[in-house]
Amino acid sequence: MIKLSDAQKKFFEGKNFAYVATLNKDGSPQVTPTWVDTDGQYVLINIATTRQKARNVKRDPRIAVAVADQTNPYNMVTIQGKVVGQVIGKEADDHIDKMAKKYLGQDKYPYRQAGETRLLLKIEPLKIAGWG
Amino acid sequence: MIKLSDAQKKFFEGKNFAYVATLNKDGSPQVTPTWVDTDGQYVLINIATTRQKARNVKRDPRIAVAVADQTNPYNMVTIQGKVVGQVIGKEADDHIDKMAKKYLGQDKYPYRQAGETRLLLKIEPLKIAGWG
Repeated sequence: MIKLSDAQKKFFEGKNFAYVATLNKDGSPQVTPTWVDTDGQYVLINIATTRQKARNVKRDPRIAVAVADQTNPYNMVTIQGKVVGQVIGKEADDHIDKMAKKYLGQDKYPYRQAGETRLLLKIEPLKIAGWG
Repeated sequence: MIKLSDAQKKFFEGKNFAYVATLNKDGSPQVTPTWVDTDGQYVLINIATTRQKARNVKRDPRIAVAVADQTNPYNMVTIQGKVVGQVIGKEADDHIDKMAKKYLGQDKYPYRQAGETRLLLKIEPLKIAGWG
């Protein structure tokens, strides 16, 4: 298994946005920004189950993620990989609150809709590139 | 043909980075940041012909592009579309200098390698979404 270096981990740990590409039903690419995290091994993305990205990775787990340093967009890391874990429930709910703390400085994720289910995606990097 | 609104055009005209997703040979997604522009109709990306992205769109023109406002990453637009023009020569060379002016404040693109050919991709938006 390919490992993220300490320098690469910092991109995912920092208050940076990830641009996440997934595959639509017809195989075309889709890309949108999200909050991002890492547990040191996997890249973590937390989305609502109603999002296009959630439907896409359920069908095809192949995914790509690019993260640039908020303070210097020329400094970035990009991975290609696959979703190896799709977690709902307490772990995903706790994790979105952790993300709210990182990105918003709030203890609780404030944007949750009634009936919204959070989905925590665990992404295994198969290829890592960076520059800057 | 779907048209970019004036508000959407501003994202591509501004000094923002685009995150561009293309398809690898095996159909998996790849995403990397680039400079971006628009002629008002198409989204324009200018890359070296040696880049993975150039090989990818030659094989499969389907592409997705997300651009966030540099000053507020929650303000963003994302398109899905296809590459309908691939231009090399004077038009592409002049355009990379225009990009150097926008992003670096320099009249001439300073990073050109010996023998590098610039490729100007013209992307037709087939689907546009934005929020913020």
